[in-house]
Amino acid sequence: MPAKKNAKVPKGTRDFDPQEMAIRERAFSIVTSVFKRHGAVAIDTPVFELKDILVDQYGEDSKLIYDIADQGGEILSLRYDLTVPFARYLASHRITNMKRYHISRVYRRDQPSIERGRFREFYQCDLDIAGEYPSMVPDSEILKVLIELLQELSSVSEFHRRRLGNYVVKISNRKILDGVFKVCGVEEKDLRPISSSIDKLDKMAWEEVKKEMVDAKGLDEGVADAIGELVRKKGYPKELLAELKTNSKLVESCGTGFEEMERLFQYLESMNILESFSFDLSLARGLDYYTGVIFEAVLMSDETSVGSIAAGGRYDHLVGKFSRREVPCVGCSLGIERVLTIMREAELEMVAEKGGKIRVPEIDVYVGSPSSGERLLNERMRICSSLWEASIRCELNYSLNPKMNRQLEYVGKQQIPLLVIVGEDELEKGVVQLKDLAKKKNHEVKFEELVASIKTILEPIEA
Amino acid sequence: MPAKKNAKVPKGTRDFDPQEMAIRERAFSIVTSVFKRHGAVAIDTPVFELKDILVDQYGEDSKLIYDIADQGGEILSLRYDLTVPFARYLASHRITNMKRYHISRVYRRDQPSIERGRFREFYQCDLDIAGEYPSMVPDSEILKVLIELLQELSSVSEFHRRRLGNYVVKISNRKILDGVFKVCGVEEKDLRPISSSIDKLDKMAWEEVKKEMVDAKGLDEGVADAIGELVRKKGYPKELLAELKTNSKLVESCGTGFEEMERLFQYLESMNILESFSFDLSLARGLDYYTGVIFEAVLMSDETSVGSIAAGGRYDHLVGKFSRREVPCVGCSLGIERVLTIMREAELEMVAEKGGKIRVPEIDVYVGSPSSGERLLNERMRICSSLWEASIRCELNYSLNPKMNRQLEYVGKQQIPLLVIVGEDELEKGVVQLKDLAKKKNHEVKFEELVASIKTILEPIEA
Repeated sequence: MPAKKNAKVPKGTRDFDPQEMAIRERAFSIVTSVFKRHGAVAIDTPVFELKDILVDQYGEDSKLIYDIADQGGEILSLRYDLTVPFARYLASHRITNMKRYHISRVYRRDQPSIERGRFREFYQCDLDIAGEYPSMVPDSEILKVLIELLQELSSVSEFHRRRLGNYVVKISNRKILDGVFKVCGVEEKDLRPISSSIDKLDKMAWEEVKKEMVDAKGLDEGVADAIGELVRKKGYPKELLAELKTNSKLVESCGTGFEEMERLFQYLESMNILESFSFDLSLARGLDYYTGVIFEAVLMSDETSVGSIAAGGRYDHLVGKFSRREVPCVGCSLGIERVLTIMREAELEMVAEKGGKIRVPEIDVYVGSPSSGERLLNERMRICSSLWEASIRCELNYSLNPKMNRQLEYVGKQQIPLLVIVGEDELEKGVVQLKDLAKKKNHEVKFEELVASIKTILEPIEA
Repeated sequence: MPAKKNAKVPKGTRDFDPQEMAIRERAFSIVTSVFKRHGAVAIDTPVFELKDILVDQYGEDSKLIYDIADQGGEILSLRYDLTVPFARYLASHRITNMKRYHISRVYRRDQPSIERGRFREFYQCDLDIAGEYPSMVPDSEILKVLIELLQELSSVSEFHRRRLGNYVVKISNRKILDGVFKVCGVEEKDLRPISSSIDKLDKMAWEEVKKEMVDAKGLDEGVADAIGELVRKKGYPKELLAELKTNSKLVESCGTGFEEMERLFQYLESMNILESFSFDLSLARGLDYYTGVIFEAVLMSDETSVGSIAAGGRYDHLVGKFSRREVPCVGCSLGIERVLTIMREAELEMVAEKGGKIRVPEIDVYVGSPSSGERLLNERMRICSSLWEASIRCELNYSLNPKMNRQLEYVGKQQIPLLVIVGEDELEKGVVQLKDLAKKKNHEVKFEELVASIKTILEPIEA
């Protein structure tokens, strides 16, 4: 006999059990309804892409890409995000404008951390708007969607609100960040490496980041200090913008960056969401492809950030890597795994405080028998068949010798509202016993009237 | 400037556009509702498994498994089906009974064929019942589900029924197939290789299959002829069973095979679905893990099979490969890609005959302006925000200089029922024009009453 195989999932991945799937289904349905409300349409792409599509897109994190083994034929890699596949999709199908959402799994060979909800296989929920539009208009809709997502996900219950209701969206602009670097004396070729270091400011102290820039990346210490002065600035969008605008050298160095932010803040105000934003010059975002507005939503506990739950920005030159035609894009990606971890905690606390349970599966009728006999198994099958055909959710007792108390136990535990009992006596008379367990009522019902009787009882429950 | 990347999808894979996604969403929702109606619960597993989990499970087709490159760490492969991951799941979580469904993608390095709907990445929809139950009871429920799936998918319209409504489910039993081989003189060690050859009978003529068994697998020609005699038998379940039972040597050689089929046919009759089945001794099924009942649903055009759309069977020893505890299972897998190809054809024909279109995206309100001015863009944003917050599906005109005729064209093309117009005059008066395009009516509505007015108009449309 061969040795048993090790029934383990790969490192950094998980199975989803039915309860987890139910929580996911609810969260995805909230997210999808927000996306659809904005007229977004769904697409999906293959789980792997030609490796060349993914090369040189993710800066220092490219080493985390999963490659498919070379078994002859094309060289493939698992997708790392949904943004590069979207840009490739636009180019493949020569699409020049589209508002699309994409909810799918992506893959990163990162160090997994279960407490932080970081896995190697995880879902992303992305909304992106592609096309030539007036400056900052699609950007502001993307940010409105982001706020709606956070509002709706935190509105499920008071337990959800307590955990998800307190957030800030940090916002900045690659043009301003690069302007800061340039005005401080960083050379063009060092912009992205220095930006990568600044991106670590939410996890590392300034001194460490400075050390990396000076020691590892050869930046002049004076330049680093000047950057430090500026990138630690953050505050109310309009106030900080006004303050920075007094620095005319900086304004000049940022191209259209300030104009864009001014316009954006005005639009966010029109949409009544500006108060959720913090203009934060330390925001850099690791990915290479951003070209304009960048943002990151962080959950707050009192005044402290407890982690990022969504992020995105504008990337105007990504589609151009695949096509002669540039298609400017802006998008956001919801870190749904972290949200789900939090929603599960909220759900469990709610169940613990209010009783009940996260109910799966949802069956309305159980068909059993009082006594033994294989003939009755056939009857139960016949009855269930007619219920299934009438779209009634039901199960039958599989046993050749059903026990009444076991059946009552089962329907109680599963919270099944109706129990149909067919025995020899009932069979003779062409009836069944229909037990309404909530109302503790018993009806003797004719076979041919069973579907109608069940529907009458279930209707007010469903409504 | 670097060369453009080739915006191609990997061989045998595809992008799904919004229309395709809408067709998929409808099909998956039908399948899911049938599964849930039977009390099945959803799970999901990682897209890859430890390679060792998949080794020696798929007979001659194991060469089609995609491996992940060795980048240090575990050796992984993409899942080939959802059955082996389910068995691994049961073992991992020490589950001994479960009725679960799983709708996900699987991966096979097969020769793709777009006409036949065969891809390298494709969805499967599986339902399996795990657990110790009386013989053939879960098996008959699985077959009932299969018939319900085919009925519901073909009931969408007359166009669907014409294409999907004519099917036969071939059914047999590995115990009987092996009994046939043994009674004809095949040795124990040759059972699976000979079974693999017989499995090709739906694509190859008997003479070719015989040649493969005799020449490539060294079977005695007399034995091959004896097998040929028996495996070409097929017909009405109860009739063929009665005929075969007169062969006492065969009955003896099949163990509990005949008893199982007799019981199963009785249950299928109780569920009123026996007439959809053909007892067919040529059915072998390629996979190594089946141990009892096996079946395959084929679509018929007149009397001819036009291809398999679902299949499955009993596998009692697969979980035991991962665990000391055996968990007997039976399941079916719907070949949803083929079904989707057919549903798309039906949908397109329906649209062509009845007019209209497959409508995506679904927006109820478009917010535009009669004339230019950025101030009005801010107004449109303000209006849309209040509609989004009231869960109304709407879009705004992004343009700085909207043109009335372009906007009317757009809402007409997208079949958007309501158009809100805000101009300088309206702004002054604190109103908007609400145009009901179906009824060709125009209402002047106060800002603060817009949500209520829209909901009043939309309600009868939704209902």
